[in-house]
Amino acid sequence: MLTPVEHLSFIKRRKTKAIQLGGLSIGGDAPVIVQSMTSTDTRDVRATVRQIKALEKAGCELIRVAVPDREAAEAIPAILKKINLPLIADIHFDYRLALDAIRHGAAGIRINPGNIPRDKIGVIIRAAKERKTVIRIGVNSGSLQKDLLKKYGGASAEALAESALQTVRYFEDQNFDLIKLSLKSSDVPAMIEAYRAVSARTDYPLHLGVTEAGSLVNAAVKSAAGIGTLLYEGIGDTIRVSVTGNPVSEIPVAYGILRALNIRKIGPDIISCPTCGRCEIDLLKLSTKIEKALTGQKDYLKIALMGCVVNGPGEAADADIGLAGGKGQGMIFKKGKLWKKVAEKDFVNVLLREINVMIEERKKV
Amino acid sequence: MLTPVEHLSFIKRRKTKAIQLGGLSIGGDAPVIVQSMTSTDTRDVRATVRQIKALEKAGCELIRVAVPDREAAEAIPAILKKINLPLIADIHFDYRLALDAIRHGAAGIRINPGNIPRDKIGVIIRAAKERKTVIRIGVNSGSLQKDLLKKYGGASAEALAESALQTVRYFEDQNFDLIKLSLKSSDVPAMIEAYRAVSARTDYPLHLGVTEAGSLVNAAVKSAAGIGTLLYEGIGDTIRVSVTGNPVSEIPVAYGILRALNIRKIGPDIISCPTCGRCEIDLLKLSTKIEKALTGQKDYLKIALMGCVVNGPGEAADADIGLAGGKGQGMIFKKGKLWKKVAEKDFVNVLLREINVMIEERKKV
Repeated sequence: MLTPVEHLSFIKRRKTKAIQLGGLSIGGDAPVIVQSMTSTDTRDVRATVRQIKALEKAGCELIRVAVPDREAAEAIPAILKKINLPLIADIHFDYRLALDAIRHGAAGIRINPGNIPRDKIGVIIRAAKERKTVIRIGVNSGSLQKDLLKKYGGASAEALAESALQTVRYFEDQNFDLIKLSLKSSDVPAMIEAYRAVSARTDYPLHLGVTEAGSLVNAAVKSAAGIGTLLYEGIGDTIRVSVTGNPVSEIPVAYGILRALNIRKIGPDIISCPTCGRCEIDLLKLSTKIEKALTGQKDYLKIALMGCVVNGPGEAADADIGLAGGKGQGMIFKKGKLWKKVAEKDFVNVLLREINVMIEERKKV
Repeated sequence: MLTPVEHLSFIKRRKTKAIQLGGLSIGGDAPVIVQSMTSTDTRDVRATVRQIKALEKAGCELIRVAVPDREAAEAIPAILKKINLPLIADIHFDYRLALDAIRHGAAGIRINPGNIPRDKIGVIIRAAKERKTVIRIGVNSGSLQKDLLKKYGGASAEALAESALQTVRYFEDQNFDLIKLSLKSSDVPAMIEAYRAVSARTDYPLHLGVTEAGSLVNAAVKSAAGIGTLLYEGIGDTIRVSVTGNPVSEIPVAYGILRALNIRKIGPDIISCPTCGRCEIDLLKLSTKIEKALTGQKDYLKIALMGCVVNGPGEAADADIGLAGGKGQGMIFKKGKLWKKVAEKDFVNVLLREINVMIEERKKV
C-alpha cells in the first residue's frame, strides 16, 4: 500500500578519503571515530596523562591537547610515552608551535586558518610532509578570518565553508592531502549547512562538532541535533561533543548519538518510559540503578525498563532483556520471550545478574 | 565562488491543517508547541495539579494525563478547575474511558490504534464530534496492532506509518478531521522515517517524540537527534521529550531543541567552551552559576562564556553579552562591542546584573 519507507540501515555514508592517524583509520570505510580534548594544562604531564587514560577508559579513540606555548609542545614526548591513543596538538596563532609539535611526535596537528597566515601554513605543510603528520584544517565560528567575516557579514555557513575550501585549495597546491576538515559553529544550523556545503565539494574526512556547546544537557541537545542530522545523511567521519566540564562526560553522549542512529552500537541502550499515572513500580529508581551499574560497559545490549502494560510487553519483547512493570511485580522478557515474573524488590538483582550472563555468553561465541 | 549555502532561516515548514485545542493553535502557522505528560496518579488531583503548575511554570504549553480507569476520568473536572493549560486524556484499551474523558471536558484525547478496535473508535469519534474534542491518533512502537507487526516483521517505520494512515482513513470516512498524529518509536531512525512517510501523505498536524527515551541525558540525545532532524526539515507541529524522571526536566530540553534550530527562541542560549589547556579562569564554575541563576528565565539572550582568546572575543562579540577569559580577568562584550575588563572574582555579579538590565530594557521597548 505504501511506497517503501527507507530505513536507517540504508544510510549511505558519503565516501571520503581514508587517512591514517597514528595507527587509527579515519574516513573511507572506517567507523565513525569518537574523539575528545583534554582540559588540563598540557605542561602538567601527570594530570594530562591521567585525564587521557580516563577518556580512553570511557571509549575515547583519539585525543587532542592544547599547545599554547613551547613548554606544552615539549611535554608531548613524555605524554606519548604513557598513553595508547593517537595524539593531536591543537595550534593557534604561532606556526612555530606546529613545527614543535610535529617534531615532538604528534600524530596530527590542528591548525586554525583564522589565526595562522597562509605563508606560515606553507612552512607547516613542509614539516608535516616529512613526518606524514595529519593536519586538521579546523575552522571555527569564533575565530574566522576578518576578511570573510566582513564579506559575509558574520560567521555564516558560507563564510565557514569558504574558509575551509580556500585552505584546502592551498594544501592541494602544495601537494599535501593528509588532511581532515572541521567547520564548527556554535550555531547549529550554520554548522549543518557549512558541513553540507563542504561535503558536496570535497572528499576529505570530516570531523564534526558543535563548538562551545555548553553544559552537559545543552551540549547533548545541540550536538545530537547538529552532529546527528549530518550523520543521518551520511556525513561525518569523526565526532567530538564539546561539554563545558569534565571531557569524560562527552564520551557517553558521543556514543549515544552513534547508537541512536544505528551507526555504532557500543554500550547499553536503555529504553525506559517517562512513567505516567499508569505506572505502579518505582521505575526511576530501577532505571537509575541499572544505568549506574552499567556505566562504562562497552557491550551493546538493548534493555527495556517499562512501567506498565501499554507499551511494556511490546518494548520488553523487542529488547535483549526487558521488564514490563505491574503492581509490585514485573514480567521479564528475554530475546522476545516471557522469561519470568519477578517481585519488585528483586528487579535490580535479577536484571543485573541476567545482563551479565548475557554479556558473558556473547563473549564466548 | 560558492553556490549559495541554504541557511536555517530558510527552513520551509511543511504546511499542516491548523487545529484548536482548548484555545491553543496547533499546526498551520502556529509555533511548534511544547507539551508534556504528568507522572502522577491522575486520581490524586492535588499532586497532579501541582505537577501541571510546575510544568506550566517551566514553559509547558499543553498537558496530557493518564486515564487508566473511570476514577481518573472523573478527576478531570477538578483538575481543569485549577489549571490554565489545555488538557489531553491519554486512553488505552477501553473506549468507554475516552467517552468519559470527553464528557468530563478534556480538550483532547489520545487514542492508540494498537489497542482500541476500529468499531469502538467509531463510537469515540461520534462523541468527539459533538464536543469538538481533538483526537490524537497516537501510534507507538511498543503497542502496534498484531497484524501489522506480523506483516512487517516488527514495529518498522512502515508498520508505524501504515497503522496511522489506516486509522486516518477511517477518521476521514467518518468525516472527522480534528486530528493530530504521532508515530513514536524508541528506535530513532524508525521514528524519523515513519514521520517522513506520513508527512508526505497527509497534512494533519504532527506530534513528534521519541518514546521511552530514558534518563535525562539519553533522552536529550535521542530526542534532539530524532525530533531535531525532523524539525530541521520542516516536519512537526508539537513536540514532547520523554524523560524517565520528573517531567519538568523535559521542558528545557524541548526548548533547547527549538532554540538550537532557530525555531523558537525562548530562554538563554549559553555558549560556553569545553575549556582546554589554554583556559586560565574557572569557566565551569562560572557557567554553572550563570546557568543556575537563569533557570526558568523565558527571555532569549545569547550569552557567551569563553575561556581564552582563541574563540573568546569572536563568540563574545557575537552574543548579546559575552566574556572572554584571560589570566585572572576577562573582557566583557555587549552587543558586539568591548564593554569592560572585569576581575575574575566579579564575573558572576557583573554578568548577572547586566543580563538583568538587558532583559528589563528589552521589556520596556
